[in-house]
Amino acid sequence: MIIDKLIERIKELGNPTVVGLDPRMDYLPEDIVKDAQDRYGRTTIAVRYALLAYNKGIIDAVCDIVPAVKPQMAFYEQFGAEGVDAYIQTVAYAKSKGLIVIGDIKRSDIASTAEAYSDGHIGQVDVFGQTTSVIEHDFITLNPYLGADSVEPFLKNCREFDKGLFLLVKTSNKGSGDLQDLISGDRTIYEIVGDLVAAWGADFVGHHGYSSIGGVVGATHPEVGAKLRARLPHTFFLVPGYGAQGGSAADIAVNFDKNGVGAIVNNSRGIIAAYKSDKYAGATYAEAARAAALVMRDDLRKVL
Amino acid sequence: MIIDKLIERIKELGNPTVVGLDPRMDYLPEDIVKDAQDRYGRTTIAVRYALLAYNKGIIDAVCDIVPAVKPQMAFYEQFGAEGVDAYIQTVAYAKSKGLIVIGDIKRSDIASTAEAYSDGHIGQVDVFGQTTSVIEHDFITLNPYLGADSVEPFLKNCREFDKGLFLLVKTSNKGSGDLQDLISGDRTIYEIVGDLVAAWGADFVGHHGYSSIGGVVGATHPEVGAKLRARLPHTFFLVPGYGAQGGSAADIAVNFDKNGVGAIVNNSRGIIAAYKSDKYAGATYAEAARAAALVMRDDLRKVL
Repeated sequence: MIIDKLIERIKELGNPTVVGLDPRMDYLPEDIVKDAQDRYGRTTIAVRYALLAYNKGIIDAVCDIVPAVKPQMAFYEQFGAEGVDAYIQTVAYAKSKGLIVIGDIKRSDIASTAEAYSDGHIGQVDVFGQTTSVIEHDFITLNPYLGADSVEPFLKNCREFDKGLFLLVKTSNKGSGDLQDLISGDRTIYEIVGDLVAAWGADFVGHHGYSSIGGVVGATHPEVGAKLRARLPHTFFLVPGYGAQGGSAADIAVNFDKNGVGAIVNNSRGIIAAYKSDKYAGATYAEAARAAALVMRDDLRKVL
Repeated sequence: MIIDKLIERIKELGNPTVVGLDPRMDYLPEDIVKDAQDRYGRTTIAVRYALLAYNKGIIDAVCDIVPAVKPQMAFYEQFGAEGVDAYIQTVAYAKSKGLIVIGDIKRSDIASTAEAYSDGHIGQVDVFGQTTSVIEHDFITLNPYLGADSVEPFLKNCREFDKGLFLLVKTSNKGSGDLQDLISGDRTIYEIVGDLVAAWGADFVGHHGYSSIGGVVGATHPEVGAKLRARLPHTFFLVPGYGAQGGSAADIAVNFDKNGVGAIVNNSRGIIAAYKSDKYAGATYAEAARAAALVMRDDLRKVL
């Protein structure tokens, strides 16, 4: 089961970090920008080249110290087809380096439309009678607002191709309270969603006691993380919000069980753009990313 | 305001229909499939060619009788970069034919990530100092589960570039009840979302009394449509679920106000794959699409 592979790799490296590959254009170092423009001018082809070059540098720098990366599709898709190509190639490169890949796509739709997303992102599509895998995701993130039948086509491919999901339960942003914190009956909406995620994941529990069907639980609400950890003993958490968004290592600790298992913590900017901080003056972006990833690993080890 | 343009075009044509461009591979007529494969083999490049050729045929057949088209991104994105290219070219072609384009993307994310989606889909991105528009959407659909601050970056671009949104309020699928029908305080979640959509849209009300910030309200729950129509007098509805999903013209009528304004009704399969029905035996897929679109127009006119 894919969740077992993730947990084992986390244990092997002693590091529950996932590096968010969210390449904002202003993160790109000058030499990559210059090289891309020299080759392809100010075009989206140059963007594709630059995003991929940048990501390869990060991946090479961290692939032996972190278990997983999480590319955020928005930062690629915004540049159209060339951006999506850079995304797909980034995923493939990360896989070739032994990383587990969590595609942060937050898709949601119904019926045959959900099937199309599911087949494209974690399954296979039919190209005139030829079956092909388009993106080599191990996990993807999904939005649950449309309900159980919007998730079912994804569960189907998880079953068939040994993939996993992280459903949005309680997100790290301020506005997450607008709907997720509302109370219905004796539960908040995020508890209701969490309970649904646990139910959907019941058939996917691996031999470490966690399911391949996990939840996104933001680090910025530690009291919620603690409550959900107790409530959902078999649900693995993807935890955004560490570092730049304000979550500390102590805030993060509540998302893990008493054995220090049960969650993976995302950091994007704090690793991939670490070279912009005075702390890493003189280092290349890749050197700084590795150094920052090691600092984060040691920070997390303290509280686990 | 873009919502005024949509309403005026609906009135001009006497037709509140939007044609869903959801090109499932098994909808493609044989001659297009053969042509694509003769040119490009069994490749995603052939898929791009086929999807675009098919859509152009539909667009040419209906552009003088319907106000808008709604491409569903899942059916393109599942084929990776080539699929996304077909999507972007489909949108551009529809715009060149005078159609209003509603991108059915159902995205949702927070902070700088939501900005990236917003800039790519309804704004502009910066390509090494060159500002460019990637996709020529007039409207896009969004998922509200992440709350107000996830919508704000989209409202910003709506303001700056005169674009519109349709937020998922009550979707047409069975599972929509899992979260959307829950009661919190004295309102259902879909009413709470509807009220938020109305508040977000208050600054975007055009001279026909409707806002460019609209809601998705499925045709399959007419009692809900009626309630929401009364509750949200300035919120324009995008109504999926007519035809194949089971909604009838009478079910649809409740989504319109007493002047027959206030909604646009989607039909995908029933128009773009009409040629597969015995009713249109002998017709090309484009001829059948036009005929089916006229039948739907006349059906809707009866109840407005």
